[in-house]
Order: sequence, then C-alpha cells, then structure tokens
Amino acid sequence: MKKIRVGIAGASGYAGAELLRLVALHPQLELATVTSEKSAGTAVGSVFPSLAGLVSHSFQSLAPETLLADADAVFLALPHTKSLDPVAACMKAGKPVVDLSADYRLKNPAVYEQWYQTPHRHAHLLKDAVYGLPELHRDAIAKARLVASPGCYPTAAILQLAPLFAHDLVQPDTIVIDAKSGISGAGRSPALLYHFPEAHESLEPYKIGQHRHIPEIEQELNALLPGNPASNKPASMVAFTPHLVPMNRGILSTAYCRLKHPAALADLRALYRTYYKGASFVRLSDDIVPNPRYIKGSNYCDIGVYADQRAGWVVTVAAVDNLVKGAAGQAIQAMNLMLALPEDMGLTAPAAYP
Amino acid sequence: MKKIRVGIAGASGYAGAELLRLVALHPQLELATVTSEKSAGTAVGSVFPSLAGLVSHSFQSLAPETLLADADAVFLALPHTKSLDPVAACMKAGKPVVDLSADYRLKNPAVYEQWYQTPHRHAHLLKDAVYGLPELHRDAIAKARLVASPGCYPTAAILQLAPLFAHDLVQPDTIVIDAKSGISGAGRSPALLYHFPEAHESLEPYKIGQHRHIPEIEQELNALLPGNPASNKPASMVAFTPHLVPMNRGILSTAYCRLKHPAALADLRALYRTYYKGASFVRLSDDIVPNPRYIKGSNYCDIGVYADQRAGWVVTVAAVDNLVKGAAGQAIQAMNLMLALPEDMGLTAPAAYP
Amino acid sequence: MKKIRVGIAGASGYAGAELLRLVALHPQLELATVTSEKSAGTAVGSVFPSLAGLVSHSFQSLAPETLLADADAVFLALPHTKSLDPVAACMKAGKPVVDLSADYRLKNPAVYEQWYQTPHRHAHLLKDAVYGLPELHRDAIAKARLVASPGCYPTAAILQLAPLFAHDLVQPDTIVIDAKSGISGAGRSPALLYHFPEAHESLEPYKIGQHRHIPEIEQELNALLPGNPASNKPASMVAFTPHLVPMNRGILSTAYCRLKHPAALADLRALYRTYYKGASFVRLSDDIVPNPRYIKGSNYCDIGVYADQRAGWVVTVAAVDNLVKGAAGQAIQAMNLMLALPEDMGLTAPAAYP
Amino acid sequence: MKKIRVGIAGASGYAGAELLRLVALHPQLELATVTSEKSAGTAVGSVFPSLAGLVSHSFQSLAPETLLADADAVFLALPHTKSLDPVAACMKAGKPVVDLSADYRLKNPAVYEQWYQTPHRHAHLLKDAVYGLPELHRDAIAKARLVASPGCYPTAAILQLAPLFAHDLVQPDTIVIDAKSGISGAGRSPALLYHFPEAHESLEPYKIGQHRHIPEIEQELNALLPGNPASNKPASMVAFTPHLVPMNRGILSTAYCRLKHPAALADLRALYRTYYKGASFVRLSDDIVPNPRYIKGSNYCDIGVYADQRAGWVVTVAAVDNLVKGAAGQAIQAMNLMLALPEDMGLTAPAAYP
Repeated sequence: MKKIRVGIAGASGYAGAELLRLVALHPQLELATVTSEKSAGTAVGSVFPSLAGLVSHSFQSLAPETLLADADAVFLALPHTKSLDPVAACMKAGKPVVDLSADYRLKNPAVYEQWYQTPHRHAHLLKDAVYGLPELHRDAIAKARLVASPGCYPTAAILQLAPLFAHDLVQPDTIVIDAKSGISGAGRSPALLYHFPEAHESLEPYKIGQHRHIPEIEQELNALLPGNPASNKPASMVAFTPHLVPMNRGILSTAYCRLKHPAALADLRALYRTYYKGASFVRLSDDIVPNPRYIKGSNYCDIGVYADQRAGWVVTVAAVDNLVKGAAGQAIQAMNLMLALPEDMGLTAPAAYP
Repeated sequence: MKKIRVGIAGASGYAGAELLRLVALHPQLELATVTSEKSAGTAVGSVFPSLAGLVSHSFQSLAPETLLADADAVFLALPHTKSLDPVAACMKAGKPVVDLSADYRLKNPAVYEQWYQTPHRHAHLLKDAVYGLPELHRDAIAKARLVASPGCYPTAAILQLAPLFAHDLVQPDTIVIDAKSGISGAGRSPALLYHFPEAHESLEPYKIGQHRHIPEIEQELNALLPGNPASNKPASMVAFTPHLVPMNRGILSTAYCRLKHPAALADLRALYRTYYKGASFVRLSDDIVPNPRYIKGSNYCDIGVYADQRAGWVVTVAAVDNLVKGAAGQAIQAMNLMLALPEDMGLTAPAAYP
Repeated sequence: MKKIRVGIAGASGYAGAELLRLVALHPQLELATVTSEKSAGTAVGSVFPSLAGLVSHSFQSLAPETLLADADAVFLALPHTKSLDPVAACMKAGKPVVDLSADYRLKNPAVYEQWYQTPHRHAHLLKDAVYGLPELHRDAIAKARLVASPGCYPTAAILQLAPLFAHDLVQPDTIVIDAKSGISGAGRSPALLYHFPEAHESLEPYKIGQHRHIPEIEQELNALLPGNPASNKPASMVAFTPHLVPMNRGILSTAYCRLKHPAALADLRALYRTYYKGASFVRLSDDIVPNPRYIKGSNYCDIGVYADQRAGWVVTVAAVDNLVKGAAGQAIQAMNLMLALPEDMGLTAPAAYP
Repeated sequence: MKKIRVGIAGASGYAGAELLRLVALHPQLELATVTSEKSAGTAVGSVFPSLAGLVSHSFQSLAPETLLADADAVFLALPHTKSLDPVAACMKAGKPVVDLSADYRLKNPAVYEQWYQTPHRHAHLLKDAVYGLPELHRDAIAKARLVASPGCYPTAAILQLAPLFAHDLVQPDTIVIDAKSGISGAGRSPALLYHFPEAHESLEPYKIGQHRHIPEIEQELNALLPGNPASNKPASMVAFTPHLVPMNRGILSTAYCRLKHPAALADLRALYRTYYKGASFVRLSDDIVPNPRYIKGSNYCDIGVYADQRAGWVVTVAAVDNLVKGAAGQAIQAMNLMLALPEDMGLTAPAAYP
C-alpha cells in the first residue's frame, strides 16, 4: 500500500519534533514537507540531533500552496492565531488537516476573541471543525476534514471528568482542576522562567484562573451534559490552576468535585470502565495512582478515580504526555481516523521506564 | 551570656540534620547531646558530611535521663508514636521540649488514635501542649513547656487559610488543598517510591483524602472561627491531596475555597497584611507567585492571594521549606519564644538562589 | 512468518523492563516466559505500569527447564555470578542465549575470579562465548550460540576508542576514561546513595579505578591492536572513573588519550567514519557534541572526536542509553544477528526529544 | 564597631545574588550600593524574591564615581572585559576592590588578549593584582588593593592539584581535568542550551580544550613548581573538559595525573593535610568522596585523593559551590583578608542537606 504523504507546518518546536518522530515510526505515513520559519534551510537532524540519520528532510519556509501541493494531508503545529489562514487554505484545497493550535477549538468565536485577543476571521469554518478528542468524538472525527486538536491540559481534564458529566453527576461550582506540567509544555523558546536554574528545584503556579485552556475544558464538559449538547454557554465553570513542575514531560491533573448524589467508589469506577470501553489509549488504574512516569513518550492517558468519603469529594487523577497524547500523538490518532486507518496505528509504543 | 545547651533526639533524619545545622548557626544555642538509634556511635560528620568540621559530636543511643541531664532544653525529632514517652519524661524533668512528631498535636486523643492507630497513653498532657505555629499561638508558646511542632503540609495550609477562617469568610465544604512536596518530606529511609529513577521525571499523588496531616489542619482552622475556639468537632472538612514532586525541598500548597460573600481581591490582601503584621517569617507576595525556590533552606513562608472572579473561587498559594519552616526552623522559632529569646534569632538567613 | 518465542530471566529490574518493552515492539519476537524471583506471581503490568495493557504475562520463578521448554531463545538479565549455571543449561539445551551479566564476558577465568570474587565453574564454555558488541564482532555473533552482552560503560568506552586501537595510534598509559551515568545504571534496588534527595543536586564519583567494567574495556581494546588479537594480557591499562549524575538514563563517556604520532582532526574523523561504515547504530557527530538527551530510549551510540592540539590530547565523547544500547537493545541487536534477522529489526526508534 | 560599607557592581546575575545574600549575613559588612544595567530602578527583592524583606536597596546604573563615593570597598561582578576600566577607577580612588571577572587574573597581557580577544588596556595594573585564592596567596591578598577572584573551575582544579605541584610530583603531559558544573555556572541569561527541557536529562561537554579557565589553571599550578615562581610560560599544559550537569549548583572536578615517582596513598594524603593545615575552607575527605551535595550554598572546598595503583594514576576529586567558593564566597573571603577581618567571617555556614 502506498504511504500517505503528510506535511507538517511549524515543526521546530517540541510538538513538531514529536510529529516528526511519530511520523517516522508510522507504517502508513510518510513525511512530504516540513516547515519552520526560524529553522528554514537547516537539516532536521541538526535542529533535533535525536533524528539525525532518520529524517533526511530540511526545514522549509511555510508556503501553504507548496505544502499542499506536496502533501496528501497536513498537520499544523503553528502558534495560536497563526493557524487561522493556513487552515482555511487547507480546507479550500480539500486536504484533511489537523490543527494543533487553539484556533478552531472553540465553537463560539466571541469566546475565542475574548481569550485570544484576536477576531476569528474564518468563523464560518468553525462548524466544520471537530474537537479532536477521539474518546469523545470518534465518529465525527472520522468524517471531518478539519480537526482542532485539543490542548494538553484539556486532554487530561476532559478525559478525567467526562464520565461524570455524561451522567450529570457533578454539582456545579465544585470543580477544581489543579494541573501540573513538565516544562516542555512551555515550548522551546528560552525565557527566564524556563531557564534551568530557575525551573529546577522550583514549582511555579501561573495564570491562576486565567489560562486559555479553560474555555475548551468548559465547552467540552458542559456539552456532555444530557440535554445540553448544543449549548455553548457553560453550565459549570471550573477553577483551574496550572503549575510548572521540574520535569521534561508529562501532565498530571488532579481534579476535585462534589457529586449531586452520594455514590459508591466501585460504582464510579464501573461507570468509567463502561464509558471508556474500547478506548485504546485510556487506561483505568485503581491500585496504582497515575503518574507521568508510566506514560511519558507514549499516547496513553492513565486515569484513576478516588473518593474522599469523609469530606465528600471525588478526586480523579489523569496523566498524559503533554507532547504525545497532549499534542502530536493525539493529532496522529485523529489523522488515522480521518484517513480510515486503524485509530491506534503507529501509536501503541509504551513509555520507556524509567 | 552563657549559651543554652540543647539536646536533640532522633537526629539522623533530614529534620534532624536541619536542627543540627540551625543550632550550629544559632548565637545562643549550643549542642549538648544528639541521639540516633541507627547511627549511634558514628560521628555526625560521617552521617552528614556537610557538617564535617562544624559539629564534633557523635550520635548516641537515646536514653532520656542522660539526654535530660545534659541539656537545658530538648528537641524530639522521633517518628510518630515514639515521642509519647520521651515527652512525658521531659515534662517530668521540667525541661522545655519541642516535639516535632505528631504525638501531641491533636487535642482530642480519640482523633489521634483514629489517625495514628495508637492509643494516646499520656492524654492528660495534651492540655499542656501548645500547637507550635507561632503566627497563631505566639503568646501561648512563650508560656508553654511543651510545644507540638506542626507538620510540614499543615504549616503551609493553615497559614494560607487562617486569615479567611479568622474572619469566617469561607463556605464550608468548598475547601480543596492540593499540596506538592519535595521528596525530602518522605524522610531519609530508602524505598522504591523515592528511588531516584522512580521519583525523577515523576509526580506522585498519594494518600488521597487520607493523609495524617488532615486532622491538624482541620483542628487549627476551625479553632480560628469566631465563637468556636474550643470545639474539636470540625466545622469544615478539607479535601487534601499531597503529591511528591521531583525536587529535594519545599512545599507548595495551592488552596481553593469559595467565600460566603463576594470580596474584592484588594480587600482580601489587606486582610492578610493586617493578620500577619509583625510576623517575621510570613512574606505576602502579590505580583510574584510564591515558589519553593525563593524560600528553600530558609524559615520564610511566602503567601499569595488570588481571586478567580469569573468562576467564583479564592486561590491562595503558600510556599515553605518542609525541613525548615515545616520542621526544624519552626521548632527553633518556638524554642526561641519558650526561652524568651527573640523569635527570629538564628533564623533570618534567606534562601540561596538559585 | 511465525514469531520466535523468547524467554527472559530476571526481568524485574530496569534492563528487564527494557527487554519487555523492546520485545513487545519487535515484529518477529514474542514473549514466551518472563521470570523474576522477587516479583514471581505478579502481573508485569503491576510491576511496570508502563506496560499495563501491553504485556499480559505474569512473572514466574526461574526454573531453567521450564524457561527452555517454552522458549526458542533466551535472554538472561540476572545479577553477576547468577548466570553461570543458567547459561550452561541453555547451552546444553541448544537454545541461543544472550547473557546480560558479566559472567561470560572475560576470556580469562582468572581475571573473572579476581574482579568478581567467584571461581568460574564453567570456564570451558568461555571459548564459545562471543563478546556481544556487534560493531566489533558482527560475524562471530551471527555464528554464536552464546553471546555475553557488554556492560553499559564498556559499550561507550570501547566504541569511542576502538578505531584508535585498531590503528595502533594510542600511547599506552595515557588513557583516561571519565564516565558519567544516569542513576538507572545502579539498578532498581533502593539504597541510600540512590535515594532521591541524596542523588539529586548531587554528583557522585565511585569505585575510582576499581569498577568491574575495567577488565572488559581493556580486554576488548587491546584485542584490537594489530598483531595482538589473542592476547589476554592488557597492553594498555586505563584510568576509569564512573560518576552518578542526577538523570534517569544515559551514559556520557569522555575519554582522553595521547597519540603515538600527531594526527590532523579531519584524518581522525575520517578514520572513524571508515571504521563504522555500515554500523547502523553508531552516529558520528562533528558539530554537535554527543549528549544523552539525543539517544535516550534508543539504541544509538553517538560519538564525537575532538583534538586539543595545544595540549596534545585527543578527546572522544560517546553517549549511549545505558538500558538500551548499554543493555537490552544491544542484547536484542545480538539476538537478531544470532537469529539471522536484520540486525536493526525492532531497534530503530529514535529518542523522544526532549 | 562601625560596619564597612560595600558597593557591588553588576549584581543581577547569580554571583551577584550570592554577594547580596552573603553581605546581608556578614556581621561587619553593610551594603552601600548595588548596580545592574538591566535591572536598574528595580527593587532587589523583585529581581531576587528570596531577598524580599531582607535587602531594601534598588539596583542602580553603574556610575563608578557614585559607587566609589558611597562605598568603602567594592566588589565587581561584571562580565569579562567590562571590569577593565572600573577596576582602574577603584584603584585610582584607593578603594580596595575584588574583581570577580577574569580581567586581572592573568599575569601576561598577551595571554589575556589571546583568550579574551581584547587588548588589556590597563596592563600596568596587573602587577598590583593578586590572584584571589587565599589558600595559595593569603599574605599577598592581605596586602593587596586589587584582588582578581578566581574562576569557579580553577578554584577546584588548582586546589585539588596544588600540593602535588608544590612538591613537583607530577609528570608533565599527564594531567587531565574532567570538570562538571551545575547550570548556574552558565549565568542567568536564558539560551537554548540552558532551557530546562534541553538541560534536564542531559549532560553537555563543551569548549573541549578551549575553555577560558585553562590559562589561569596553568598559570597558578606552574607557578607553584619549586624554582619556577615567576615564570609565566606553562611548564605543564592540561587537558580540560567542562560539562554541564543537570543540577543548579556545584562543581565536581575529577583530575588525573601520573607521578614522577611512585608514592603511597597514605603519604599523598598526609602531604595534602600538611599543605592545607589552617585552611578553614578546605576539607580533606578520605572515606567519603567529595560531592557537591555536601557543600552547596557554602564556602567549603572538599577534596579527596585516590590512587589507582594498578594503572598508575593519582585521581583527585574536588567539590565547590560555583557561586560561593567559586565566586561570591571566595570574593568575600579575600575581602575579609584585605580588610583585616577574620578570613572566615560570615562564611562558615554549612550546606543545607539535602
């Protein structure tokens, strides 16, 4: 079978490096073109020595028409607001596109403008965009031409709370999501906050209640409420605090909520098992608490459900690799679906431990 | 002025090492005797090479009478349940004692027995014990002969929430404390969970809703409620999840709650400033979010207050060094008060940065 | 094609976890049996949660006859001195075996006894054992039934110096190998030295001039000298100091030597390129200095050659993943050769970066 | 006694932060003025939150005359080549100055120009400059008005080899210094190499044989050779490779050499003890190998001497904190001597462990 040729735009960051790695390992995908503005003209193996000898391409400048001429399908790993036009170009050319930015994730363009300080100049395309979380939107993704791949924090937060929302179990105004991320989540551009001596032996809460991933978490969770699929108005709002933790990769999200009615832990866990039946990349863990060390480099999302009966809280813990299930891996998982390939193709490798 | 001679029992762990370091730096304290069962007979400088040339003592076996004969005042850094009798011996000998274990922290012996699976065989002494958080109990500590020094997590959690409780602002059943600790908080005994390759590139939630520090947090916070000082029955219960983070030292505690009535952020911050006026070791930080890197090795507790007006939560962040303000430093701070020395004597050194 | 069934003995350590991971990814190998004394009866996914859902076996106790009945080929990842008998059993059963211990690496049983304090009770098998470094002994490995897979440090040290020895360029008594290893190299058994707070913000030289990997480095390098293939008496001895570095994986070896005759750097580099022509897993790097971050989790060995013309030294730097090219990956590379599979089958995945 | 007022120029880097911390702790020094170009106008506590509440000054722009008007003595923590003129201004004003840059370390201006690509426009002052390693030049420092404080690597390298050179024991052309540094040694300016995800799980050799600290190591060691004090021509050259290690602080230097005549280890160690008799900050360690974790945040230099009798090498290991004994602490140690204060005043605090 002839391989499908893919183009990757904006690949000199960490998510881009992971796309390059995962495409290189994928049995049915083949790299056509890779772009980066700051590394244009440089060999991939010079920017990412890990790929030396494995990827022979050089980075090019982004020119959508060239990218599209060469590629059967496209991944866009551009910064937020920079994907607006390239997505439109891909759509026009009829090429399947997975956009890793936030530009097409929010259904309501006013919400996008509010959080990203940019008007959404292709708002008419939003109805075609499917939020790229296959565990929630598998069928829609398979039919989509445009997938808006989720942010790293939302991947963990939505997956750990979705079964509770789908059964309308959660008391509104009781949801706290305390998320912790490895520093690669901040990207590859040096800055004081990510300078090794500042970030090491350090633990940095940031953008308390103000992180841009909040609206997509609320959009997706509230859409799961029975009888509420089409509403964009949040029924629940979440307290969300991200923290930078001194590790390279991985997100651990600890979410707290109170239930509308008491429930036994065993019943809650059964409900999660049913909800994620058949989801190749969700692993439910009872005795072993999820931890980034079990999933780093892999596309798995480990979820644990716990109950603090004494104080009346349900606590869920989710771990994902921010660059794989939280970015490049999830994008390929969606692309597999769009291309009618097996959903898990090229993505089943486990974490190297330790 | 003649120095006051102190004995330290159980000093071959990390809190003990810090007691040795801080006593060596203290202008009015002098080490009389130091004990450790597993290192008895070994020079301090062999167990802790950082102290080589600075502390000339060797560890001895714990024999309370010898310890007491030699020392004017005593620090007990023994494991939980192992301080019950030595404290009684110190009390009998009339020597001021600061106990770093949990054995005399909880006012209600039934609560102690429930969480520590051990009957409290000296329950009559509990009325003499003062919870050793000087920011809350300065005067009582100064008059006490027995101080029960707080746990590391409770130091952060209580200090970050105390002003809100003292003004009865918090809605019960809305308190979530998500705490993160460096691995030294787990002590110095090797185990798989703390083995470097397991703990590095790792983030481990543990004892979700079940950590033994919960009852002292609830005891101290509820006691602050106006009109409720004597009650041991928790008015509020807290959801508490500790996490192990790949750093050596430091606790970062992120606490969430909802208020009974809306409040402006500026008013909340003013309330904290008033509450902690004169507290040498509490630093309130508005623009710079507290981070363990600013306080490691020091006795400071940095606190930041934030408001998520959109979702209706108050978020407070506290950072302490688990071994200093969370253990040895706080114990010395209390001892200074008991000995009528300046509260901050020997404790003002800032963190070495980075 | 029917898969080849492999047994793995002693797989509850880190090298064992890597063997399990790499076998799971290998297109032609299939796990038959896996043993561990301390984890016998436990599911692989409970000991290594990274493999949950991917490896369904449970650990068994080692019983060589069962292992051999079930498996077409065997990997032994047992501690040093514990492989002596199992290897003999495999040989008797005629099953190809790759032994990851040191037990069959040294040609001279007296040298083995001196460094491992154990008489070699199967010394007659040593003539059948091939030192499992495919870059040096590819043909012999392909014909062997017993491969003694190299230690992690020797893999780096031998590969970085082999071309110089093969051309007899090195002045004896000038070779210094300063090696640095991630902590996983110390294994998975907790001990104070590897306790996170001790090993973090720490850098530990150990066994200075006394590490057991020294004799195999000297054996292999001296055997490369023209005219000296059969001698076991070292022509050169090396100064070798290993260090523990606060990272999980990876070895960086910095080797220094003086040449018998001056040589231009370009000529030296050309000589390395020629020597490693066709070696799939050796990557020569000129501008980018080898670093564990480029090879972690992969089977590559990156080598850089540098000249300090001013002071008269050649400095070579090699990076390998101690658990892959330094252990499990190399063992599979040798097994591929023994089984007449492509040498790089199942081993080409690059490092996940960062 | 009235405190001595000191000015610090260029204090917004890590060495500057340490100078501020150590001056704050010093019983006889008091901060007069502190300058920084990039942080001028900002409060010290905003740039270094660790010092909030402890240092009330704001950074100013450097104006030598103001600095000198205000201060009794001066520390210059400016970048290399930027101290040339300010030192001259201090000398003219007759104020004692400790310069932490390399500008006055090398006796031979031609060597300076060669390694720093800048002509030394105040070469006539070099004769007045004393190399600020008190263990070698105590008396000269006490009489000096200009002290050139050593680099971090040379502090370790010179101290670990000095006794061997002073007794002319070392074979020339056999000296290898393999040095490892925490990332704070690279300064506080963000760059890709020091970006957390690049520097973590990473180990980077750099400037192999080309680091600017080489000439001062050679200058100082060769000057110790009997009969050779005045010569600037190196009798020995060293192979020197620095490495960046994923820790915040600390240098570990492993040095190898061959002796002119065989010597027993006990004799070598005795020789070191004699040489460093009375040196408050050198700790000789036999059984416990020096490790940065024992000295971080402190002014101690731990040294261990080992012999590889089999292969014929002496291996010495030295550990210093690059920012304290390798920079700010050593500068204050020299200033104490210049000001006729006790050499160790304000500097005896041990490392916080772990």
